[in-house]
Amino acid sequence: MTGGARVRRRTRKERPARQAQILETAARIFCEKGFDRASMGDVSTALGLTKAGVYHHIRSKEELLYAIMAYGMDLFEEKVLTQVSGIEDPLERLRATLRGHVLLVTRDRPKEITVILHESNALKGRFRERINARKRRYVRFLEKTFRELARGGLARKVDPAVASFAMLGMINWIYQWYRPGGRLSEEQLADALADLLLQGVLKGPAEA
Amino acid sequence: MTGGARVRRRTRKERPARQAQILETAARIFCEKGFDRASMGDVSTALGLTKAGVYHHIRSKEELLYAIMAYGMDLFEEKVLTQVSGIEDPLERLRATLRGHVLLVTRDRPKEITVILHESNALKGRFRERINARKRRYVRFLEKTFRELARGGLARKVDPAVASFAMLGMINWIYQWYRPGGRLSEEQLADALADLLLQGVLKGPAEA
Repeated sequence: MTGGARVRRRTRKERPARQAQILETAARIFCEKGFDRASMGDVSTALGLTKAGVYHHIRSKEELLYAIMAYGMDLFEEKVLTQVSGIEDPLERLRATLRGHVLLVTRDRPKEITVILHESNALKGRFRERINARKRRYVRFLEKTFRELARGGLARKVDPAVASFAMLGMINWIYQWYRPGGRLSEEQLADALADLLLQGVLKGPAEA
Repeated sequence: MTGGARVRRRTRKERPARQAQILETAARIFCEKGFDRASMGDVSTALGLTKAGVYHHIRSKEELLYAIMAYGMDLFEEKVLTQVSGIEDPLERLRATLRGHVLLVTRDRPKEITVILHESNALKGRFRERINARKRRYVRFLEKTFRELARGGLARKVDPAVASFAMLGMINWIYQWYRPGGRLSEEQLADALADLLLQGVLKGPAEA
Protein backbone atom coordinates (compact mmCIF):
# COMPACT_ATOMS: atom_id res chain seq x y z
CA MET A 1 0.00 0.00 0.00
CA THR A 2 3.00 2.33 -0.01
CA GLY A 3 3.07 2.51 -3.82
CA GLY A 4 0.72 5.50 -3.85
CA ALA A 5 3.54 7.78 -2.77
CA ARG A 6 5.12 7.39 -6.20
CA VAL A 7 2.01 8.87 -7.76
CA ARG A 8 1.38 11.43 -5.05
CA ARG A 9 4.71 13.20 -5.19
CA ARG A 10 4.33 14.22 -8.80
CA THR A 11 2.25 17.26 -9.66
CA ARG A 12 -0.19 17.17 -12.52
CA LYS A 13 2.22 18.86 -14.94
CA GLU A 14 5.19 16.63 -14.22
CA ARG A 15 3.18 13.45 -14.59
CA PRO A 16 4.05 11.57 -17.76
CA ALA A 17 1.46 11.62 -20.52
CA ARG A 18 0.94 7.85 -20.32
CA GLN A 19 0.00 7.95 -16.67
CA ALA A 20 -2.39 10.88 -17.21
CA GLN A 21 -4.01 8.86 -20.00
CA ILE A 22 -4.42 5.84 -17.72
CA LEU A 23 -6.03 7.94 -15.00
CA GLU A 24 -8.43 9.66 -17.38
CA THR A 25 -9.47 6.41 -19.05
CA ALA A 26 -9.86 4.58 -15.75
CA ALA A 27 -11.86 7.49 -14.29
CA ARG A 28 -14.25 7.31 -17.25
CA ILE A 29 -14.68 3.54 -16.83
CA PHE A 30 -15.16 3.80 -13.05
CA CYS A 31 -17.85 6.46 -13.68
CA GLU A 32 -19.65 4.30 -16.22
CA LYS A 33 -19.48 0.90 -14.50
CA GLY A 34 -18.83 1.82 -10.87
CA PHE A 35 -15.54 0.91 -9.17
CA ASP A 36 -16.71 -2.52 -7.96
CA ARG A 37 -17.89 -3.69 -11.37
CA ALA A 38 -15.01 -2.28 -13.39
CA SER A 39 -11.99 -4.55 -13.81
CA MET A 40 -8.35 -3.86 -14.59
CA GLY A 41 -9.10 -5.78 -17.82
CA ASP A 42 -11.70 -3.14 -18.76
CA VAL A 43 -9.11 -0.43 -18.20
CA SER A 44 -6.34 -2.12 -20.18
CA THR A 45 -8.70 -2.94 -23.08
CA ALA A 46 -9.86 0.69 -23.29
CA LEU A 47 -6.22 1.82 -23.36
CA GLY A 48 -5.16 -0.74 -25.95
CA LEU A 49 -2.59 -2.08 -23.48
CA THR A 50 -2.01 -5.50 -22.01
CA LYS A 51 -2.89 -5.92 -18.35
CA ALA A 52 0.85 -6.19 -17.64
CA GLY A 53 1.28 -2.84 -19.43
CA VAL A 54 -1.18 -1.21 -17.02
CA TYR A 55 0.38 -2.91 -13.98
CA HIS A 56 3.73 -1.43 -15.05
CA HIS A 57 2.28 1.98 -14.15
CA ILE A 58 -0.15 1.14 -11.34
CA ARG A 59 0.20 -1.67 -8.79
CA SER A 60 -3.46 -2.41 -8.05
CA LYS A 61 -7.04 -1.37 -8.78
CA GLU A 62 -7.11 0.15 -5.28
CA GLU A 63 -4.02 2.26 -6.06
CA LEU A 64 -5.61 3.28 -9.37
CA LEU A 65 -8.69 4.55 -7.51
CA TYR A 66 -6.45 6.48 -5.13
CA ALA A 67 -4.42 7.97 -8.00
CA ILE A 68 -7.64 9.12 -9.73
CA MET A 69 -8.93 10.78 -6.56
CA ALA A 70 -5.53 12.39 -5.85
CA TYR A 71 -5.56 13.74 -9.43
CA GLY A 72 -9.12 15.07 -8.86
CA MET A 73 -7.93 16.81 -5.69
CA ASP A 74 -4.93 18.23 -7.62
CA LEU A 75 -7.36 19.65 -10.18
CA PHE A 76 -9.61 21.14 -7.49
CA GLU A 77 -6.69 22.68 -5.59
CA GLU A 78 -5.05 24.03 -8.74
CA LYS A 79 -8.22 25.44 -10.32
CA VAL A 80 -10.11 26.60 -7.24
CA LEU A 81 -8.31 26.63 -3.91
CA THR A 82 -4.98 28.12 -5.07
CA GLN A 83 -6.84 30.78 -7.05
CA VAL A 84 -8.88 32.04 -4.11
CA SER A 85 -6.84 31.42 -1.00
CA GLY A 86 -4.90 34.68 -1.42
CA ILE A 87 -8.04 36.86 -1.53
CA GLU A 88 -7.89 39.15 1.52
CA ASP A 89 -11.58 40.02 1.88
CA PRO A 90 -13.47 37.02 3.33
CA LEU A 91 -16.74 37.83 1.52
CA GLU A 92 -15.01 38.11 -1.83
CA ARG A 93 -13.01 34.93 -1.02
CA LEU A 94 -16.17 32.98 -0.19
CA ARG A 95 -17.96 34.09 -3.36
CA ALA A 96 -14.93 33.25 -5.51
CA THR A 97 -14.60 29.81 -3.87
CA LEU A 98 -18.25 28.92 -4.35
CA ARG A 99 -18.19 30.20 -7.91
CA GLY A 100 -14.94 28.41 -8.79
CA HIS A 101 -16.11 25.14 -7.25
CA VAL A 102 -19.52 25.30 -9.01
CA LEU A 103 -17.94 26.09 -12.38
CA LEU A 104 -15.44 23.25 -11.95
CA VAL A 105 -18.19 20.66 -11.40
CA THR A 106 -20.59 22.04 -14.04
CA ARG A 107 -18.42 23.40 -16.87
CA ASP A 108 -15.21 21.37 -16.66
CA ARG A 109 -16.82 18.29 -15.07
CA PRO A 110 -13.62 16.27 -14.63
CA LYS A 111 -14.47 12.58 -14.27
CA GLU A 112 -11.85 12.36 -11.50
CA ILE A 113 -14.04 14.58 -9.31
CA THR A 114 -17.16 12.52 -10.07
CA VAL A 115 -15.17 9.48 -8.90
CA ILE A 116 -14.30 11.30 -5.64
CA LEU A 117 -18.03 11.91 -5.06
CA HIS A 118 -19.32 8.47 -6.09
CA GLU A 119 -16.66 6.16 -4.72
CA SER A 120 -15.70 7.78 -1.41
CA ASN A 121 -16.58 4.55 0.41
CA ALA A 122 -14.63 2.30 -1.97
CA LEU A 123 -11.27 3.72 -0.89
CA LYS A 124 -9.80 2.11 2.25
CA GLY A 125 -6.97 2.42 4.72
CA ARG A 126 -4.08 4.82 4.18
CA PHE A 127 -5.26 5.84 0.71
CA ARG A 128 -8.61 6.88 2.15
CA GLU A 129 -6.89 8.76 4.97
CA ARG A 130 -4.78 10.78 2.52
CA ILE A 131 -7.77 11.88 0.44
CA ASN A 132 -9.77 12.67 3.59
CA ALA A 133 -6.90 14.85 4.87
CA ARG A 134 -7.09 16.94 1.68
CA LYS A 135 -10.89 17.22 1.99
CA ARG A 136 -10.52 18.33 5.61
CA ARG A 137 -8.05 21.04 4.56
CA TYR A 138 -10.76 22.49 2.30
CA VAL A 139 -13.36 22.33 5.09
CA ARG A 140 -10.99 24.16 7.46
CA PHE A 141 -10.41 26.82 4.80
CA LEU A 142 -14.20 27.34 4.51
CA GLU A 143 -14.72 27.41 8.28
CA LYS A 144 -11.93 29.98 8.65
CA THR A 145 -13.59 32.14 5.99
CA PHE A 146 -16.98 31.97 7.75
CA ARG A 147 -15.26 32.87 11.04
CA GLU A 148 -13.55 35.87 9.47
CA LEU A 149 -16.89 37.06 8.09
CA ALA A 150 -18.34 36.89 11.60
CA ARG A 151 -15.36 38.72 13.14
CA GLY A 152 -15.68 41.45 10.50
CA GLY A 153 -19.29 41.97 11.62
CA LEU A 154 -20.72 40.85 8.27
CA ALA A 155 -22.04 37.41 9.16
CA ARG A 156 -24.95 36.48 11.36
CA LYS A 157 -24.39 33.92 14.10
CA VAL A 158 -23.89 30.85 11.97
CA ASP A 159 -22.04 27.72 12.98
CA PRO A 160 -18.93 27.61 10.73
CA ALA A 161 -19.10 23.80 10.38
CA VAL A 162 -22.82 23.80 9.51
CA ALA A 163 -22.31 26.63 6.99
CA SER A 164 -19.30 24.88 5.39
CA PHE A 165 -21.01 21.51 5.02
CA ALA A 166 -24.26 23.13 3.86
CA MET A 167 -22.24 24.84 1.12
CA LEU A 168 -20.50 21.57 0.20
CA GLY A 169 -23.84 19.76 0.16
CA MET A 170 -25.35 22.34 -2.22
CA ILE A 171 -22.37 22.00 -4.57
CA ASN A 172 -21.87 18.25 -4.38
CA TRP A 173 -25.58 17.64 -5.07
CA ILE A 174 -25.50 19.64 -8.33
CA TYR A 175 -24.57 16.67 -10.50
CA GLN A 176 -27.78 14.93 -9.39
CA TRP A 177 -30.08 17.47 -10.99
CA TYR A 178 -28.33 20.15 -13.05
CA ARG A 179 -28.06 19.64 -16.81
CA PRO A 180 -25.64 21.94 -18.69
CA GLY A 181 -27.24 23.61 -21.71
CA GLY A 182 -30.61 23.88 -19.93
CA ARG A 183 -32.53 26.84 -18.56
CA LEU A 184 -29.72 28.03 -16.25
CA SER A 185 -26.17 28.64 -17.46
CA GLU A 186 -23.31 27.45 -15.25
CA GLU A 187 -22.63 31.10 -14.34
CA GLN A 188 -26.27 31.73 -13.42
CA LEU A 189 -26.30 28.62 -11.25
CA ALA A 190 -23.10 29.71 -9.47
CA ASP A 191 -24.54 33.19 -8.84
CA ALA A 192 -27.91 31.81 -7.67
CA LEU A 193 -26.25 29.47 -5.17
CA ALA A 194 -23.89 32.18 -3.87
CA ASP A 195 -26.86 34.49 -3.45
CA LEU A 196 -28.88 31.81 -1.64
CA LEU A 197 -26.06 30.91 0.74
CA LEU A 198 -25.26 34.54 1.53
CA GLN A 199 -28.73 36.12 1.66
CA GLY A 200 -31.03 33.14 2.32
CA VAL A 201 -34.56 32.69 1.04
CA LEU A 202 -36.38 35.29 3.10
CA LYS A 203 -36.38 39.04 2.67
CA GLY A 204 -34.53 40.91 5.39
CA PRO A 205 -36.46 43.19 7.78
CA ALA A 206 -35.53 46.24 5.66
CA GLU A 207 -36.82 44.66 2.43
CA ALA A 208 -40.05 43.04 3.63
CA MET B 1 -39.72 -6.72 -14.06
CA THR B 2 -43.42 -6.37 -13.22
CA GLY B 3 -43.01 -8.15 -9.89
CA GLY B 4 -42.34 -4.85 -8.10
CA ALA B 5 -46.03 -3.99 -8.28
CA ARG B 6 -46.80 -6.75 -5.79
CA VAL B 7 -44.55 -5.01 -3.29
CA ARG B 8 -45.53 -1.49 -4.18
CA ARG B 9 -49.26 -1.82 -3.66
CA ARG B 10 -48.89 -2.73 -0.02
CA THR B 11 -48.37 0.01 2.51
CA ARG B 12 -45.81 -0.36 5.27
CA LYS B 13 -48.37 -1.47 7.83
CA GLU B 14 -50.04 -4.11 5.69
CA ARG B 15 -46.74 -5.67 4.70
CA PRO B 16 -46.19 -9.07 6.31
CA ALA B 17 -43.55 -9.21 9.03
CA ARG B 18 -41.36 -11.62 7.05
CA GLN B 19 -41.11 -9.25 4.11
CA ALA B 20 -40.31 -6.28 6.35
CA GLN B 21 -37.57 -8.37 7.96
CA ILE B 22 -36.12 -9.24 4.55
CA LEU B 23 -36.08 -5.59 3.50
CA GLU B 24 -34.46 -4.41 6.72
CA THR B 25 -31.80 -7.10 6.66
CA ALA B 26 -31.04 -6.61 2.97
CA ALA B 27 -30.87 -2.83 3.45
CA ARG B 28 -28.30 -3.31 6.21
CA ILE B 29 -26.22 -5.63 4.02
CA PHE B 30 -26.44 -3.33 1.00
CA CYS B 31 -25.24 -0.44 3.22
CA GLU B 32 -22.30 -2.45 4.56
CA LYS B 33 -21.10 -4.12 1.36
CA GLY B 34 -22.59 -1.95 -1.38
CA PHE B 35 -25.27 -3.30 -3.73
CA ASP B 36 -22.81 -4.62 -6.32
CA ARG B 37 -20.77 -6.65 -3.84
CA ALA B 38 -23.66 -7.99 -1.79
CA SER B 39 -25.16 -11.27 -2.98
CA MET B 40 -28.55 -12.88 -2.45
CA GLY B 41 -26.57 -15.54 -0.56
CA ASP B 42 -25.41 -12.86 1.93
CA VAL B 43 -29.02 -11.83 2.45
CA SER B 44 -30.37 -15.37 2.91
CA THR B 45 -27.53 -16.29 5.31
CA ALA B 46 -28.20 -13.22 7.46
CA LEU B 47 -31.89 -14.15 7.58
CA GLY B 48 -31.24 -17.82 8.35
CA LEU B 49 -33.20 -18.75 5.23
CA THR B 50 -32.29 -20.77 2.18
CA LYS B 51 -31.83 -18.80 -1.04
CA ALA B 52 -35.05 -20.42 -2.28
CA GLY B 53 -36.74 -19.10 0.86
CA VAL B 54 -35.73 -15.54 -0.03
CA TYR B 55 -36.70 -15.98 -3.69
CA HIS B 56 -40.15 -17.02 -2.50
CA HIS B 57 -40.63 -13.41 -1.35
CA ILE B 58 -38.51 -11.45 -3.84
CA ARG B 59 -37.85 -12.39 -7.47
CA SER B 60 -34.41 -10.84 -7.99
CA LYS B 61 -31.67 -8.75 -6.35
CA GLU B 62 -32.80 -5.87 -8.55
CA GLU B 63 -36.38 -6.17 -7.26
CA LEU B 64 -35.03 -6.35 -3.71
CA LEU B 65 -33.19 -3.05 -4.24
CA TYR B 66 -36.37 -1.51 -5.60
CA ALA B 67 -38.44 -2.82 -2.68
CA ILE B 68 -35.94 -1.35 -0.18
CA MET B 69 -36.03 2.06 -1.88
CA ALA B 70 -39.83 1.99 -2.15
CA TYR B 71 -39.96 1.20 1.59
CA GLY B 72 -37.56 4.12 2.25
CA MET B 73 -39.84 6.43 0.27
CA ASP B 74 -42.86 5.06 2.23
CA LEU B 75 -41.07 5.97 5.46
CA PHE B 76 -40.16 9.45 4.21
CA GLU B 77 -43.68 10.14 2.96
CA GLU B 78 -45.33 8.77 6.12
CA LYS B 79 -43.01 10.50 8.60
CA VAL B 80 -42.32 13.78 6.80
CA LEU B 81 -44.36 14.63 3.72
CA THR B 82 -47.80 13.56 5.01
CA GLN B 83 -47.17 15.38 8.31
CA VAL B 84 -46.37 18.73 6.70
CA SER B 85 -48.29 18.89 3.43
CA GLY B 86 -51.45 20.14 5.16
CA ILE B 87 -49.71 23.14 6.79
CA GLU B 88 -51.32 26.25 5.34
CA ASP B 89 -48.56 28.82 5.95
CA PRO B 90 -45.71 28.25 3.46
CA LEU B 91 -42.99 29.45 5.86
CA GLU B 92 -44.16 27.16 8.64
CA ARG B 93 -44.55 24.32 6.09
CA LEU B 94 -40.98 24.81 4.82
CA ARG B 95 -39.49 24.85 8.33
CA ALA B 96 -41.45 21.74 9.32
CA THR B 97 -40.37 19.92 6.15
CA LEU B 98 -36.70 20.73 6.61
CA ARG B 99 -36.86 19.84 10.28
CA GLY B 100 -38.73 16.58 9.69
CA HIS B 101 -36.40 15.52 6.89
CA VAL B 102 -33.25 16.35 8.93
CA LEU B 103 -34.54 14.49 11.99
CA LEU B 104 -35.45 11.47 9.86
CA VAL B 105 -31.92 11.17 8.45
CA THR B 106 -30.10 11.97 11.72
CA ARG B 107 -32.22 10.51 14.53
CA ASP B 108 -34.13 7.64 12.90
CA ARG B 109 -31.49 6.95 10.22
CA PRO B 110 -33.41 4.19 8.41
CA LYS B 111 -30.97 2.11 6.35
CA GLU B 112 -33.53 2.11 3.53
CA ILE B 113 -32.97 5.86 3.05
CA THR B 114 -29.18 5.44 3.09
CA VAL B 115 -29.66 2.89 0.29
CA ILE B 116 -31.71 5.44 -1.69
CA LEU B 117 -28.83 7.93 -1.37
CA HIS B 118 -25.95 5.52 -2.04
CA GLU B 119 -27.37 3.28 -4.73
CA SER B 120 -29.42 5.67 -6.88
CA ASN B 121 -27.37 4.64 -9.93
CA ALA B 122 -27.69 0.91 -9.29
CA LEU B 123 -31.45 0.89 -9.96
CA LYS B 124 -32.39 0.62 -13.64
CA GLY B 125 -35.36 0.73 -15.98
CA ARG B 126 -38.93 0.85 -14.69
CA PHE B 127 -37.91 0.42 -11.05
CA ARG B 128 -35.67 3.48 -11.31
CA GLU B 129 -38.43 5.45 -13.03
CA ARG B 130 -40.89 4.69 -10.20
CA ILE B 131 -38.51 5.85 -7.46
CA ASN B 132 -37.58 8.94 -9.48
CA ALA B 133 -41.25 9.83 -9.89
CA ARG B 134 -41.64 9.83 -6.09
CA LYS B 135 -38.50 11.96 -5.68
CA ARG B 136 -39.84 14.42 -8.29
CA ARG B 137 -43.11 14.70 -6.35
CA TYR B 138 -41.12 15.90 -3.32
CA VAL B 139 -39.17 18.40 -5.43
CA ARG B 140 -42.41 19.80 -6.87
CA PHE B 141 -43.80 20.14 -3.33
CA LEU B 142 -40.71 22.14 -2.30
CA GLU B 143 -40.80 24.32 -5.42
CA LYS B 144 -44.47 25.08 -4.84
CA THR B 145 -43.68 26.08 -1.24
CA PHE B 146 -40.88 28.44 -2.36
CA ARG B 147 -43.24 29.94 -4.96
CA GLU B 148 -45.94 30.53 -2.33
CA LEU B 149 -43.38 32.27 -0.11
CA ALA B 150 -42.51 34.59 -2.99
CA ARG B 151 -46.18 35.29 -3.79
CA GLY B 152 -46.82 36.12 -0.13
CA GLY B 153 -44.05 38.75 -0.33
CA LEU B 154 -41.83 36.91 2.16
CA ALA B 155 -39.19 35.46 -0.16
CA ARG B 156 -36.51 37.25 -2.10
CA LYS B 157 -36.18 36.51 -5.81
CA VAL B 158 -34.89 32.97 -5.59
CA ASP B 159 -35.19 30.33 -8.29
CA PRO B 160 -37.55 27.67 -6.82
CA ALA B 161 -35.58 24.82 -8.43
CA VAL B 162 -32.21 26.12 -7.19
CA ALA B 163 -33.61 26.66 -3.68
CA SER B 164 -35.21 23.18 -3.60
CA PHE B 165 -32.10 21.35 -4.75
CA ALA B 166 -29.86 23.47 -2.51
CA MET B 167 -32.04 22.38 0.42
CA LEU B 168 -31.92 18.73 -0.67
CA GLY B 169 -28.14 18.97 -1.09
CA MET B 170 -27.70 20.34 2.44
CA ILE B 171 -29.82 17.52 3.87
CA ASN B 172 -28.53 14.65 1.76
CA TRP B 173 -24.92 15.60 2.56
CA ILE B 174 -25.48 15.38 6.32
CA TYR B 175 -24.59 11.69 6.58
CA GLN B 176 -21.14 12.50 5.17
CA TRP B 177 -20.12 14.62 8.12
CA TYR B 178 -22.62 14.71 10.99
CA ARG B 179 -22.10 12.32 13.92
CA PRO B 180 -25.03 11.91 16.36
CA GLY B 181 -23.99 12.39 19.97
CA GLY B 182 -21.43 15.05 19.06
CA ARG B 183 -21.32 18.80 19.63
CA LEU B 184 -24.65 19.50 17.87
CA SER B 185 -27.86 17.66 18.73
CA GLU B 186 -30.11 16.57 15.87
CA GLU B 187 -32.55 19.36 16.82
CA GLN B 188 -29.78 21.98 16.83
CA LEU B 189 -28.60 20.83 13.43
CA ALA B 190 -32.14 21.01 12.04
CA ASP B 191 -32.59 24.53 13.42
CA ALA B 192 -29.16 25.70 12.19
CA LEU B 193 -29.86 24.45 8.67
CA ALA B 194 -33.35 25.98 8.60
CA ASP B 195 -31.91 29.26 9.80
CA LEU B 196 -29.14 29.17 7.18
CA LEU B 197 -31.51 28.40 4.32
CA LEU B 198 -34.01 31.05 5.37
CA GLN B 199 -31.72 33.88 6.52
CA GLY B 200 -28.42 33.15 4.77
CA VAL B 201 -24.95 33.81 6.13
CA LEU B 202 -24.85 37.60 5.92
CA LYS B 203 -26.56 40.10 8.17
CA GLY B 204 -29.41 41.95 6.51
CA PRO B 205 -29.15 45.72 5.85
CA ALA B 206 -31.09 46.43 9.09
CA GLU B 207 -28.77 44.26 11.22
CA ALA B 208 -25.35 45.23 9.82
